[in-house]
Amino acid sequence: MTSTTLLHLDSSISPAESVSRTLTARFAAAWRARHGAAARLRHRDLVADPVPAVRAAYADLGRRVERKGVLSLDEVAALVENPDEECEWALTRSLIEELRAADTVLLGAPMYNFTVSTGLKAWIDRISFPGAYVDAGTGEKLLRDTRVVVVAARGGGYGPGTPREHFDFQIPYLRAYFGNLGVAEDNLHIIAAELTRADDIPALNGLQPLAAESLARAEAAVDALAAAV
Amino acid sequence: MTSTTLLHLDSSISPAESVSRTLTARFAAAWRARHGAAARLRHRDLVADPVPAVRAAYADLGRRVERKGVLSLDEVAALVENPDEECEWALTRSLIEELRAADTVLLGAPMYNFTVSTGLKAWIDRISFPGAYVDAGTGEKLLRDTRVVVVAARGGGYGPGTPREHFDFQIPYLRAYFGNLGVAEDNLHIIAAELTRADDIPALNGLQPLAAESLARAEAAVDALAAAV
Repeated sequence: MTSTTLLHLDSSISPAESVSRTLTARFAAAWRARHGAAARLRHRDLVADPVPAVRAAYADLGRRVERKGVLSLDEVAALVENPDEECEWALTRSLIEELRAADTVLLGAPMYNFTVSTGLKAWIDRISFPGAYVDAGTGEKLLRDTRVVVVAARGGGYGPGTPREHFDFQIPYLRAYFGNLGVAEDNLHIIAAELTRADDIPALNGLQPLAAESLARAEAAVDALAAAV
Repeated sequence: MTSTTLLHLDSSISPAESVSRTLTARFAAAWRARHGAAARLRHRDLVADPVPAVRAAYADLGRRVERKGVLSLDEVAALVENPDEECEWALTRSLIEELRAADTVLLGAPMYNFTVSTGLKAWIDRISFPGAYVDAGTGEKLLRDTRVVVVAARGGGYGPGTPREHFDFQIPYLRAYFGNLGVAEDNLHIIAAELTRADDIPALNGLQPLAAESLARAEAAVDALAAAV
């Protein structure tokens, strides 16, 4: 049996209250039970162990690479010009390799202020190095077969047809971002849990039944996906 | 002559190459020259002096406040329950007060991976404390008269009608975010500089004239606004 690798990322700052973390843990447990000894799981907590924000030397190196076209990671390393760039590339390369090595990426992504959290954006800004997901030889998209499962928790309701739909810069953003990275549309699965803060926010009072329905649907979607990918 | 306060925020990680920083500096210089001794300018560099990402205690305090409705900053302080919350509130309150005290906010906001940078998101996540921009007594929106000038630099072209328009999670996001914070639509000015990386990115080759036109339009818009607000 060949092994299969799950990269599990969490980004909620509230472990004790987090709906996204509860759902990603549920997925990871089911996935691990199903794959048994073949399962290789890497859990990265983007809050407990934050990815440092990219700095000027990251952009300097990125520009130098981009002008040359698509390069292999070793070719990028050979373009490093100073210790700052060396540091930035060391922080970056290991995360790129981790993502490229994953068969499935499981991402817990709560909505903060209508989009992804600071911690998740730090990961996104770092891993999105020019050309890192294209084969330098063949031009092939390296994440074409990678499955991405996003658990998108949102305190309010932002689904299609709701009054706040146009405030959703979380799910449409992640869809556009991963699509641009080369993840195939059929391999990108986004599970929304809506109204997760119905108990806390006076304006959402009375919407608890809708929140419970949304959570039940999200749990069912998690179970179905964990049995399939 | 009454004084007037400009809060100038920058978030580009590349000071030497930054179009957004060049344009915000141009605005700040013109604004300062115009207001003379009445000008009070606060420059906050979200990269050199990053705002720490919010942590669990921030959310704990926020939930406690939100359940009670809109509170004054002193009332929030009285709800702090432990040293972690005290630390989070100390980091937060000063930034809220700084924003509330500004007559004009000048924001340099480059697009990184289709939306705002990690450093800007850290500021957004921290200042967006529940109820912080509503008068606890009257319910009045505290930022109703605040002018916000956003300089939105983007490496590619994302304007209306372009093929990449639906990848713009920067300008529509900031418009929705500041609107939700209570900034009046008439007081929110967004200046786009497009194709700022036309020189670096082989796929944008030949678009340098369009980039130069976009920059000239942005400079003219900066000058006009700095003379008006």
